[in-house]
Amino acid sequence: MGVRGVLLIGGEEVVGSQAGVYAVNPATGAELETAFTGAGDGEVSRACTLAAAAFDAYRETSQSVRAAFLRTIGEGIVALGDELIERAMAESGLPRPRLEGERGRTVGQLEMFADIVERGAFLGAVIDTAQPERKPLPRPDLRLRRIAVGPVAVFGASNFPLAFSVAGGDTASALAAGCPVVVKAHPAHPGTSELVGRAIQDAVKKCGLPAGVFALLGGAGNAVGEAMVRHPAIKAVGFTGSRAGGLALMHIAAARPEPIPVYAEMSSVNPVFLMEHALADDAALLAKGFVDSLVLGVGQFCTNPGLAIGVEGDGFSRFAAAAAEEVAGRGAGTMLSPAIHAAYTRGVERLASCDQVTTLARVEEVSGSKGAPALFAIAAADLLAKPELGEEIFGPSSLLVRCNTAEQMQQVAEQMEGQLTATLLAADADAEALRPLLQILERKVGRIVYNGYPTGVEVAWAMVHGGPFPATTDSRTTSVGGGAIERFLRPVSYQNLPPGLLPEVLQDGNPLKAPRVVDRTAE
Amino acid sequence: MGVRGVLLIGGEEVVGSQAGVYAVNPATGAELETAFTGAGDGEVSRACTLAAAAFDAYRETSQSVRAAFLRTIGEGIVALGDELIERAMAESGLPRPRLEGERGRTVGQLEMFADIVERGAFLGAVIDTAQPERKPLPRPDLRLRRIAVGPVAVFGASNFPLAFSVAGGDTASALAAGCPVVVKAHPAHPGTSELVGRAIQDAVKKCGLPAGVFALLGGAGNAVGEAMVRHPAIKAVGFTGSRAGGLALMHIAAARPEPIPVYAEMSSVNPVFLMEHALADDAALLAKGFVDSLVLGVGQFCTNPGLAIGVEGDGFSRFAAAAAEEVAGRGAGTMLSPAIHAAYTRGVERLASCDQVTTLARVEEVSGSKGAPALFAIAAADLLAKPELGEEIFGPSSLLVRCNTAEQMQQVAEQMEGQLTATLLAADADAEALRPLLQILERKVGRIVYNGYPTGVEVAWAMVHGGPFPATTDSRTTSVGGGAIERFLRPVSYQNLPPGLLPEVLQDGNPLKAPRVVDRTAE
Repeated sequence: MGVRGVLLIGGEEVVGSQAGVYAVNPATGAELETAFTGAGDGEVSRACTLAAAAFDAYRETSQSVRAAFLRTIGEGIVALGDELIERAMAESGLPRPRLEGERGRTVGQLEMFADIVERGAFLGAVIDTAQPERKPLPRPDLRLRRIAVGPVAVFGASNFPLAFSVAGGDTASALAAGCPVVVKAHPAHPGTSELVGRAIQDAVKKCGLPAGVFALLGGAGNAVGEAMVRHPAIKAVGFTGSRAGGLALMHIAAARPEPIPVYAEMSSVNPVFLMEHALADDAALLAKGFVDSLVLGVGQFCTNPGLAIGVEGDGFSRFAAAAAEEVAGRGAGTMLSPAIHAAYTRGVERLASCDQVTTLARVEEVSGSKGAPALFAIAAADLLAKPELGEEIFGPSSLLVRCNTAEQMQQVAEQMEGQLTATLLAADADAEALRPLLQILERKVGRIVYNGYPTGVEVAWAMVHGGPFPATTDSRTTSVGGGAIERFLRPVSYQNLPPGLLPEVLQDGNPLKAPRVVDRTAE
Repeated sequence: MGVRGVLLIGGEEVVGSQAGVYAVNPATGAELETAFTGAGDGEVSRACTLAAAAFDAYRETSQSVRAAFLRTIGEGIVALGDELIERAMAESGLPRPRLEGERGRTVGQLEMFADIVERGAFLGAVIDTAQPERKPLPRPDLRLRRIAVGPVAVFGASNFPLAFSVAGGDTASALAAGCPVVVKAHPAHPGTSELVGRAIQDAVKKCGLPAGVFALLGGAGNAVGEAMVRHPAIKAVGFTGSRAGGLALMHIAAARPEPIPVYAEMSSVNPVFLMEHALADDAALLAKGFVDSLVLGVGQFCTNPGLAIGVEGDGFSRFAAAAAEEVAGRGAGTMLSPAIHAAYTRGVERLASCDQVTTLARVEEVSGSKGAPALFAIAAADLLAKPELGEEIFGPSSLLVRCNTAEQMQQVAEQMEGQLTATLLAADADAEALRPLLQILERKVGRIVYNGYPTGVEVAWAMVHGGPFPATTDSRTTSVGGGAIERFLRPVSYQNLPPGLLPEVLQDGNPLKAPRVVDRTAE
């Protein structure tokens, strides 16, 4: 099929009006051949306006049509075959098995949302029937359903070129909710984006949906994305990326004449708490598991464990020594882009040169684009005094925090910003010590992992990939798992609407067989 | 019992460090006797810090304890007896039956949330059990529940001194969710606020809850409220009031180092659509119902119908004439406060003096504090050209909009900002004409009323008292009805947590008998 460097708008391939980007192979630093054109204001406006025009028809498509559409996208992605995998490898430096796995995850997400759409619980139907005899006033008939919020702007993430990019979790959940989607392609993988975008565009056609349901825009710099978020047709934003990027979009959205929600998943250091008895039992084994998680994917996961916290003592020392040895034995890996590599190197240098920080292990960099694992240590008192030393360094670097007491470990937890995850490495005998810590962590994080590692985010209904700020801009939401659809729905109540005008899901007899709550009882 | 002009912090009555306010009887303009002291930064900080300290214990109280607490508050409000009603009458100018009804509504809201807490669905429990044999990787055990977001700042509204004030819907839903609440008393009814606040404070004691679960602060000006929203312990804000006020809080909240959600219910003109066949059948009767809704409570409802839109013709003319006659026959009424009266008068004057606007009826003002009903008319083309003429005037004033065609009526709907409600006055024969209008209105409003009037907001599970901006700052929420609790909850997922550490609602065997979804099936 080949990539052509185009935008996808209104069911067509469009040559952008702006100079765009070249993809760069991060392993070699070489530009790949196709020049990708960028969107100007006219193209942004056209894509958003078409999305608005498609909205009413798309949001009222039947559950079966929408589910079939999501599955057709998945089939289209699979049908792209090896061309997609090879392009993604070239653009991201990620290895084949990882990208094949990520493709499976992407298709699986689309399938999960198709299933959720078919089940209908997401429609949130609630009915309070009339009580004409009630005194002093009769109660009207009230029927509530949820409808899609409107066109959504989605920003592809660099670290998941398939599962959190053009047809990733944000797009899949927004389309499932009934929202047209306008995607801003991540400039690090424009070819991968175009291929997947074309699969979605084809699915729109195959399923007979309005062309405005999907558009793919690209371009260098921030102008395209900012124009998307400012466009009055856009009613919500999905973003995964840096804290600075997410905050910038949030402030643009809040300053609009009509403010809109921005669901930004941004920054997390994913602390690992090393409990006394677990360290006593298994320090070396835990250290190996920890380092496996740390260096997985060259540390480029949102849930990468950037902090490990324990009380000093024999077990902690053995953990530190074993982790240092493990890190020293791991190789450097190609990072997603030269910019990410440069930021990682700066972050590691900053820690290494800090008086309060001890370098436990640092792998030598073999080439200019490879991220080399690193492990540092700091006393808890120093981290409490300088919390900025615990900030996220995106890549395979972690900081061990040495506490004097269990209370100090709680203090470190209490001072933490919001996180996607917290991990507890614990033995049965640690249970009582965990209770106060758990209470703190529940306030701070979206997911608590017990005797596992934070990387590896299961796509499930009970997943929370979210958390208090700055992990996300909206702690009530998740961007992975079934709950992600909630972000793109809002309730509408119908009072005494006659049967012929009621949405099908609210009609007497429940013709859609959707889960409903009628007079406070689940139906 | 008497009012004493105090703040309520930490289970105690506190004399505020700042000069505060006197209540004013809006009917006479006279100050009532007690001087209410105002909170300074120290008192704001103490209340918020105590709320944070109480949070972990309060959010984990059992469902039965929390339900009993909500009911105890209701009993305490009832026990205040006539002193409460008389104080509220003196401070608000509202008549006794209205305030007695509002007290019933307030107690009913607390009862509704007690019931919701007991049922347990709000905990949102979802369980995906482990699949240890899954290939290529085992699936972990994931269990999600929702927990309270943290201490909430609530701003009492002037127009519902009981049902949307100190123990109103925001407070009741936040307490139900497990959030401590710090209330900013509305300066228009400080005595009413103190009495109700004391009932809550007493309930906190009676139920053996930490004192920080509730505080009542007051003061003149915006400083107290702004300090509350800025305080790091506060994690969400509930507000009902003006657009300027809600937006100011929203921008303060977004600029915090940790941004927090503001649920502001602000501005709505609640358009009424007059359909052709309904007008042909019943213009005079509809006009009477419309004017009843318009002047109810001197037009001081969030859902007051400020706009009525129809296609010109015989029916519309009859409606306009009958509505004008009705308005002319209604008396002026005491408004909630001198400030509200002044703003109403300015708004009416602005419309009356506008070239494009015709005055259909205007009741003479008999005293300086009474809001006099008014009815104006405008051609749709003029409103489309100058949409600001359709902005909310808080009080018993409405604007009839004369369209040339049904398409122009849709254009007016399409140009509207977000609204709490839209009302359809229609006959069976209007059904086909309603379909395109309904599609527009679903995008614009939270509740669609058919052959009723927008005032009278039922406290029910299927109610939506919300809507797109500027009706609220978050269209995904409601501030009246069962759904209001959703605003103050966030999901937390537990991965492989051992049974002894799991929250009760997520334990095997469902000891709380809460509605749960286990492996994608409702339990």
